[in-house]
Amino acid sequence: MTLMRDEIHEIPSVVERLLREGVEERRAAARAVQDARPRWVAIVARGTSDHAAIYARYLIETHLGLQTGLAAASVTTTYNAALDWRDTLVLAVSQSGQSPDICAVAEAARQGGALTIAVTNDPDSPLAAITSGTLLLHADQERSVAATKTYVATLAVIAALVSELAPDSELAGALPHLADALSEATQASEAWITEGRSPFAEFAAADRAFIVSRGHNLSTALEVALKLKETGLIMADGYSTADFLHGPVVLSGAEVPLLFFRPDGRVGAAIDEGVAKARLMGAKPWIVGGRELLAMKGKPEPLVLDIGLPEALTPLAYAIPGQLLAEAVARRRGLDPDAPQGLTKVTRTR
Amino acid sequence: MTLMRDEIHEIPSVVERLLREGVEERRAAARAVQDARPRWVAIVARGTSDHAAIYARYLIETHLGLQTGLAAASVTTTYNAALDWRDTLVLAVSQSGQSPDICAVAEAARQGGALTIAVTNDPDSPLAAITSGTLLLHADQERSVAATKTYVATLAVIAALVSELAPDSELAGALPHLADALSEATQASEAWITEGRSPFAEFAAADRAFIVSRGHNLSTALEVALKLKETGLIMADGYSTADFLHGPVVLSGAEVPLLFFRPDGRVGAAIDEGVAKARLMGAKPWIVGGRELLAMKGKPEPLVLDIGLPEALTPLAYAIPGQLLAEAVARRRGLDPDAPQGLTKVTRTR
Repeated sequence: MTLMRDEIHEIPSVVERLLREGVEERRAAARAVQDARPRWVAIVARGTSDHAAIYARYLIETHLGLQTGLAAASVTTTYNAALDWRDTLVLAVSQSGQSPDICAVAEAARQGGALTIAVTNDPDSPLAAITSGTLLLHADQERSVAATKTYVATLAVIAALVSELAPDSELAGALPHLADALSEATQASEAWITEGRSPFAEFAAADRAFIVSRGHNLSTALEVALKLKETGLIMADGYSTADFLHGPVVLSGAEVPLLFFRPDGRVGAAIDEGVAKARLMGAKPWIVGGRELLAMKGKPEPLVLDIGLPEALTPLAYAIPGQLLAEAVARRRGLDPDAPQGLTKVTRTR
Repeated sequence: MTLMRDEIHEIPSVVERLLREGVEERRAAARAVQDARPRWVAIVARGTSDHAAIYARYLIETHLGLQTGLAAASVTTTYNAALDWRDTLVLAVSQSGQSPDICAVAEAARQGGALTIAVTNDPDSPLAAITSGTLLLHADQERSVAATKTYVATLAVIAALVSELAPDSELAGALPHLADALSEATQASEAWITEGRSPFAEFAAADRAFIVSRGHNLSTALEVALKLKETGLIMADGYSTADFLHGPVVLSGAEVPLLFFRPDGRVGAAIDEGVAKARLMGAKPWIVGGRELLAMKGKPEPLVLDIGLPEALTPLAYAIPGQLLAEAVARRRGLDPDAPQGLTKVTRTR
């Protein structure tokens, strides 16, 4: 076992713990949001946390109706722009809480009148000291350089906060079953990898790949692509179905493997257009998704995660087979998934 | 000559014309913005226009101080979310003005109380009919499937609008010289390609590439990468320096060519860290930028565009060598840059 695989397997228990131990933090953060009544939301993040930010963006817009943007740190750190931060909720997402640029934006936003909340795994980090509220990941130390359990924990913390703010949504009813659903997803994904039904041999033999989804799972596509880049040294790109069809689809084909994440329902139907076009281009797309895939014909066989989560929570489950795939691809390519060459756990960009 | 190369060479005259013929449209749009006093800007776009949107985001945030986000169309079209659009300026960017999803978001935003302005090449398009204001590209018909002159025209229209709204900025002083500067950039870039000083042979022999920049030129990196994908069938990825250092840098090396766009000044200095790290990983990065590159040692020789534009306008010039590079790479690879297989001029995503 690698540390990375160990830590992926910890995901269900990490999520169970953060939902249990984080209740008071979340309620305090939700009260602060209700008092501040923000008109829009800005999320500050980098790398893997940026993909959690993209998840947060869809979740907040669809559940709270607040327009949500991803802040560009250089506007503050390089251009010293005087942004109007009033009436803004700023979520600053950093597993380590150490990135100087994330801290600089959080500081500027707080001074400019925003309500700032950190999402971090380290209560003693510089970021947690700057923001007025903190939501912790409760994920223990992550020893592999590639973030896996902290990524899913970040999604879970954000979903739990949004659920506090939208108590009548489907999130509140689903969160109590979330950890069990993630356990089921982990078991099914592990079998998918070890029984050779996953695309890991095909990806390991490729230099390029596309990972495609839409909506809440755009985050999954981007994050799984980044993991394949970091640990497997594969040039994998994540796309929304619509952006994929606007150009990159031309690169699909036998030499560039494709993986779609397709939740059930209306979002899944919006992804099928991309699957169909890729097949026309000669690709044989792999698909991970919900029970609607049981009715889908054609090879290769899909991974069906029939785990009873609403579409808005499927990214927490779908990340797991993606992370396990990246780990298996790295090992097959003779690489150490725990310590990708050239990367460190904390990237101190300015 | 291909249509694509013809149309790249039209860029200076297109920009000259739109600055001259678009005066009244811009003033009307600027007055509408001043009357509406938006607190926040949302940009709706896809594909190449999405990269123009990223340029607009930096330009608006740094020059107008308004937080600017890129709308996710599926929040409206797939999730039917009821977003709060009040106090928002929505820029809907579509060269053709035909995309159903861009139109749907513009319609929802207008009904929700946003001030909506279209940026399009077609005054009779569905998009122009929906929005309350229109800024035209004045770019004549674009016959190549790959958008080139309409991309730079879109940046120019946005820069001219921001200049109207920030008359004391460096933009107002620079716009009268813009078309001449773009002529100089076109000539220098054409020589760079035809004299074999550009990376086109190296890119044509590669399956993967990275294009990296920061700030206003993040748009350049993303757009040149997309052009290399669409026309050259190279898996090229665009990154900001900071995000590049957060993971993808591990893929740098002899087999994956790298191109940096490095304007002079503070932004350029923030890019040098990425150049240095890529060199450590064994890459020999190519660089396009300003006169500060004259002092830079090491091979390959940089392309110096010493054309007197402020950093905020360099993306209009730097796009040109990038587009010419993609066109030359496609021809070297035996592809038709004017008609990439599998793409059409108007992509009707929902």
